[in-house]
Amino acid sequence: MALSGGIGGAKLALGLSRVLAPETLTVVANTADDFEHLGLSISPDIDTLMYTLAGLDNSETGWGRRGETWAFMSALAQLGGETWFKLGDADLAVHVERTRRLRAGESLSRITTDLCQRLGIAVRILPMSDDPVRTRIRTDDGWLDFQDYFVRYQSRPVVREIVFAGAAAARPQPGLLAMLADPDLRAVIICPSNPLISIDPILALPGVRKAVIGCRAPVVAVSPIIAGRAVKGPTAKMLDELGVVPSAETVARRYADMIDVFVADPDDAALVSEACLDVEVHATPTLMRTLADREHLARAVLDAADRAAIRQSPSLSLDVS
Amino acid sequence: MALSGGIGGAKLALGLSRVLAPETLTVVANTADDFEHLGLSISPDIDTLMYTLAGLDNSETGWGRRGETWAFMSALAQLGGETWFKLGDADLAVHVERTRRLRAGESLSRITTDLCQRLGIAVRILPMSDDPVRTRIRTDDGWLDFQDYFVRYQSRPVVREIVFAGAAAARPQPGLLAMLADPDLRAVIICPSNPLISIDPILALPGVRKAVIGCRAPVVAVSPIIAGRAVKGPTAKMLDELGVVPSAETVARRYADMIDVFVADPDDAALVSEACLDVEVHATPTLMRTLADREHLARAVLDAADRAAIRQSPSLSLDVS
Repeated sequence: MALSGGIGGAKLALGLSRVLAPETLTVVANTADDFEHLGLSISPDIDTLMYTLAGLDNSETGWGRRGETWAFMSALAQLGGETWFKLGDADLAVHVERTRRLRAGESLSRITTDLCQRLGIAVRILPMSDDPVRTRIRTDDGWLDFQDYFVRYQSRPVVREIVFAGAAAARPQPGLLAMLADPDLRAVIICPSNPLISIDPILALPGVRKAVIGCRAPVVAVSPIIAGRAVKGPTAKMLDELGVVPSAETVARRYADMIDVFVADPDDAALVSEACLDVEVHATPTLMRTLADREHLARAVLDAADRAAIRQSPSLSLDVS
Repeated sequence: MALSGGIGGAKLALGLSRVLAPETLTVVANTADDFEHLGLSISPDIDTLMYTLAGLDNSETGWGRRGETWAFMSALAQLGGETWFKLGDADLAVHVERTRRLRAGESLSRITTDLCQRLGIAVRILPMSDDPVRTRIRTDDGWLDFQDYFVRYQSRPVVREIVFAGAAAARPQPGLLAMLADPDLRAVIICPSNPLISIDPILALPGVRKAVIGCRAPVVAVSPIIAGRAVKGPTAKMLDELGVVPSAETVARRYADMIDVFVADPDDAALVSEACLDVEVHATPTLMRTLADREHLARAVLDAADRAAIRQSPSLSLDVS
């Protein structure tokens, strides 16, 4: 299983779906970026995962659909509507249909499963919770809803604090806890997503962090930072503003109590190894430009997980003793 | 002022807007066709009026916008959503924006005024009420919501009864009653819309029929029936199924207690005259194929109204006596 935010996680999830039997892969999606806009319930990370796994993603933007058209946005602008969050004509169908079904009382997980089926996605995408959790960011300009910070203000405000409103009361997706307790689970993969706003919300749900720590399967995290920079998005800037060095080592330290293996780009991996954390470090190229890159990283992550499993297995310990 | 449904009324409204100073024209729109679909609040007659008066209408379909695209509908179909009511990509902007503002507590009339302003429409479009009224149709297949009858089932079910749910409790738009009481009102024009489902709902609002009857301004109705057939839509079929002959005369009889002048195509006008109703009959071509046709009919209607006003004026009666 993989824990994922949007674009970086979706790339690795696509790689995993191609080197595994896709129906054996579950991707737990962050939903703390979800928001209500123009009366529509929008789940950006679920959508990025769906479009990526369905082969419908727009690789140029990193969000939305390939070959998208913008007649709705043009008409909305003419009517004086809010246009800071771009909703493509085809993309709108997902938001309208999801919103309609949520209002009718269906759960986000049920709706997501159906949409995935319609889009021909064999991977299981599991929203981290069916209850609303909303990332709020305290900046030098005051408290902001996540999408205001991220899209409307283009991540420009200086970040001072991040909270996940509703997380303490939200029920983690039952399937998430069940999988973490499953003795047959092969691995937990923390995708190269923003740890602060994509992975932390999942871990903030009651019992999830503890379940990851207690999980029998190996836990492998992939660094979203390469040479001090985020591949995409404000991860490095946010870490810096929160007073820590934006580096792979910083991410490894954040995850150290939970993970068995940290996967990073070779130069970063060398530095993380020198930090002598109680974590195996695996060096491999982590930048995913091509489909082959995604598959390569997926294989490397699974291999690292399987090797960690062998090291940790009680039978092997017995052999060694 | 004009009372109007969708396409036929919108054509005459456009003609009127071109032969009058457009800001002096108020079109009262039927809202009993309004419905909620895919979680959106849709007002078909208001939209047809808006698009027609803004020059954005699709003359081929008679609904929706010119040059419309359908990426949303295609994507919705792929997701298994309902596709029997076609919503174009640009058209969606109106529905999303209207729905958002209605949910925020704004009135339909306020929203309509703003949308008209954004679309550069000088004519005032007034929803007949800000309260929901919904046409329900009893057919041989049971009770149907209007759009189910009209669009989903293409007006095929046999009509037995028509009710306007909510009409008795709905407050007519205050501006509508104020105008009908205004001694300076030039005319009330009942557009060539379906009397059963476009004009009747307006008249069913508390006080409106009485206010039209008591109005000092001349009331002129234009026949939506030409030679026993409706120009567009199910008017003739519905009249027939309700047990009356689908003719201009039938429409004139329905309106006879309210109107001063009935305008019909020459052949129809001759037949209506022979019926010796207590109504002036004016013969003029009523089929509006071209913009010139619309303007011609608008002038004819206004002339007929003005002549009726002179006939009815107390000073003129004094001269005659």
